[in-house]
Amino acid sequence: MFLLGLNNPSRKAVSKLIVQKFGGTSLADLDCIEKVAERIRLRAQGGDRMVVVVSAMAGETDRLEALANRFCGEIPHREMDMLVATGEQVSASLLSMALKKKAVKSRAFLGHQIPIRTSEDLGEARIESIDPRELKEWIFSGGVAVVAGYQGVNARGEITTLGRGGSDLTAVALAGALDADLCEICTDVRGVYTADPRICSEARPIRKLCYDEMLELACLGAKVLQARSVQLAKRYQIPIYVRSSFEQHPGTTVTTEELGMEGTVVSAISCDRTEGKISIRNLSEDAEKTSSLFRALAEQDISVDVIVQDRSDSGKVNLTFTVPRLCFSKALETAQLCKEEDHSVEIKSHEKVTKVSAVGLGMRSHSGVAARIFGTLSREGIEVMAVSTSEIKICCVLDERYGELAVRALHEEFGLAKEPN
Amino acid sequence: MFLLGLNNPSRKAVSKLIVQKFGGTSLADLDCIEKVAERIRLRAQGGDRMVVVVSAMAGETDRLEALANRFCGEIPHREMDMLVATGEQVSASLLSMALKKKAVKSRAFLGHQIPIRTSEDLGEARIESIDPRELKEWIFSGGVAVVAGYQGVNARGEITTLGRGGSDLTAVALAGALDADLCEICTDVRGVYTADPRICSEARPIRKLCYDEMLELACLGAKVLQARSVQLAKRYQIPIYVRSSFEQHPGTTVTTEELGMEGTVVSAISCDRTEGKISIRNLSEDAEKTSSLFRALAEQDISVDVIVQDRSDSGKVNLTFTVPRLCFSKALETAQLCKEEDHSVEIKSHEKVTKVSAVGLGMRSHSGVAARIFGTLSREGIEVMAVSTSEIKICCVLDERYGELAVRALHEEFGLAKEPN
Repeated sequence: MFLLGLNNPSRKAVSKLIVQKFGGTSLADLDCIEKVAERIRLRAQGGDRMVVVVSAMAGETDRLEALANRFCGEIPHREMDMLVATGEQVSASLLSMALKKKAVKSRAFLGHQIPIRTSEDLGEARIESIDPRELKEWIFSGGVAVVAGYQGVNARGEITTLGRGGSDLTAVALAGALDADLCEICTDVRGVYTADPRICSEARPIRKLCYDEMLELACLGAKVLQARSVQLAKRYQIPIYVRSSFEQHPGTTVTTEELGMEGTVVSAISCDRTEGKISIRNLSEDAEKTSSLFRALAEQDISVDVIVQDRSDSGKVNLTFTVPRLCFSKALETAQLCKEEDHSVEIKSHEKVTKVSAVGLGMRSHSGVAARIFGTLSREGIEVMAVSTSEIKICCVLDERYGELAVRALHEEFGLAKEPN
Repeated sequence: MFLLGLNNPSRKAVSKLIVQKFGGTSLADLDCIEKVAERIRLRAQGGDRMVVVVSAMAGETDRLEALANRFCGEIPHREMDMLVATGEQVSASLLSMALKKKAVKSRAFLGHQIPIRTSEDLGEARIESIDPRELKEWIFSGGVAVVAGYQGVNARGEITTLGRGGSDLTAVALAGALDADLCEICTDVRGVYTADPRICSEARPIRKLCYDEMLELACLGAKVLQARSVQLAKRYQIPIYVRSSFEQHPGTTVTTEELGMEGTVVSAISCDRTEGKISIRNLSEDAEKTSSLFRALAEQDISVDVIVQDRSDSGKVNLTFTVPRLCFSKALETAQLCKEEDHSVEIKSHEKVTKVSAVGLGMRSHSGVAARIFGTLSREGIEVMAVSTSEIKICCVLDERYGELAVRALHEEFGLAKEPN
């Protein structure tokens, strides 16, 4: 058994080993499965060694969860994972059958058959190790391996699942364990876009991103790739290629930072409409106050995202933070407690905000990006409620009504519609 | 690991260990699953140790097979078993969830988790061994074990399935491996009937049958219990109790032959409408001829059922046999070959025949049963085309049109409507 961490990160050059992942919308029905099989057949014929990771057929996981809803709440347990894992078991079986029908040597593998060993946590397990020997033997005998994504087995022999987007994680982890040349994520979009094309018609797929940019975009709700998968890919230096399942357009390569990447100041504008904002004004200047507030939020499993703090002239502290809208009212109740202790405290809340962010490696070396962002938003008359920054990202919290306008204006400002040279 | 054959066949008396099996119609939807859970809860509360084996929810196996049909024919393979095994995985997960919701300590087990080890044959594997340790530990800790029926794992780690009716087999084999006190088959009928109630309104559930009678009835198409399961139960001396899943009527106990059982001359009248009959007249008296005919049929996987042979005055041989209707035309073609070699040979075929049989342990000690059967059929003007007998069965091949009449007449003749004392 090889622990993930023991793999040699060097890439092979001779025979290409590809891990390809197909999402649920690419496997929506038997026609789609047949089309996917045909693409794999052509690729395998070209000489590539293929490991194909599949999600459940579109809608299947929801159907299974709806069945389970009758009997159980949110509590993860053995049976819930056992149940939803059938979704990927079905699609892996069917795709492998479809390949065999096309005379492609194929075999379907479940998580516990490989095995993909995970932590004990049901519902959102972490991959701990993968034994790649049986898979390797199979693909080096000329077979295509079809692997049920999203699932593994824990030390107690229980079937575990890896949480939402878990099939991406399966694909990247397998690519790491197999020392693959490339991990292809085949999906229903052409790649990672410069902005959400539904908001900004000028948006186009980005050719190349580095892991850190992709991480910022994944965390900011770009949804194409799950953040845990990008982190894992970065750790094992596995290049990811995001592309359309059925169209032949070039997609997005996510890889290590390369020379010249900083030439592009901003790579993409993202937009996240899942959070709400709470501001607390006139808190007394007492670090214990702030930390006890965040502790209380954490105890209720409310994850705080953007945090901005400043001090007024009177020495009082103003604190602004965002939380997922799903926990907004719970978070607001918790914030109100600060007021009970000190009546000068004011609470302002805004449930419908949008986080609009500019992400780009080039920010590190190009000054003035913030100025251009503020200038653009101000020209459009958009008030910025809060700002948070990282080395390669500037994130503005805005009223939801201005989200789309802000995305379009910033996309224009940074000239993203045009392919960089 | 305990091999099945190494178990001690003696029954325990103190704490009852029950293996209960629920078929697909008893698990047709979430309401049914909840009702089944409630019955199990009451039973477990009464102090019994419970292992519950489940089939797939009604219609699910057909749905999965229909999906697979697009990509594969009849050939059994790894992916087909992997696919259909999800049916029982889903129902086991859901039933265990439903039990937990009712505060019953419960855990779902898949075939490979126990493990139930099988032969390599996909699609119709044989159970080779069962390791009962984990299950035992669980039920003796006070938990209910819900086991996905119909499935196992072979030496190559592949998921295998046990063929039609395989969940019965899982239940009986587990009862054997766990040295259970009873194996209950909960189904949509009240037990094994004296005749098919759709044909004979007077039919009633039989209280008690011995394994050999049940085997004759299972093979003759009574459909309540699969013949392989009855054989296994006989081998391990596991009493089987066939009863309704939801009603409280007494069912049928299938057990070892007991004193007094021979008091009932005939226990049941069965009726099988799945075969066709072929007669070959004037074959020359040459054993090689007959045996080469049956060899040719066997090579085409045609299983011959009833075989009757006699010799005419002229020293020629007349041969009559029945085959499944599905292979009737293939069998007839094969039979025609006898004619090509010898033009005096005559072939007569009758695709729509019915096998009506009287089964009863009492036949061994009561003479004149055959006379009563022929007398009854003759009174009704029914021609008997062929007869075959075993020690506890008399089987008559009739024109399909007379099948129902024959069942009713024989049911009446042997007084089966009345419960024996």
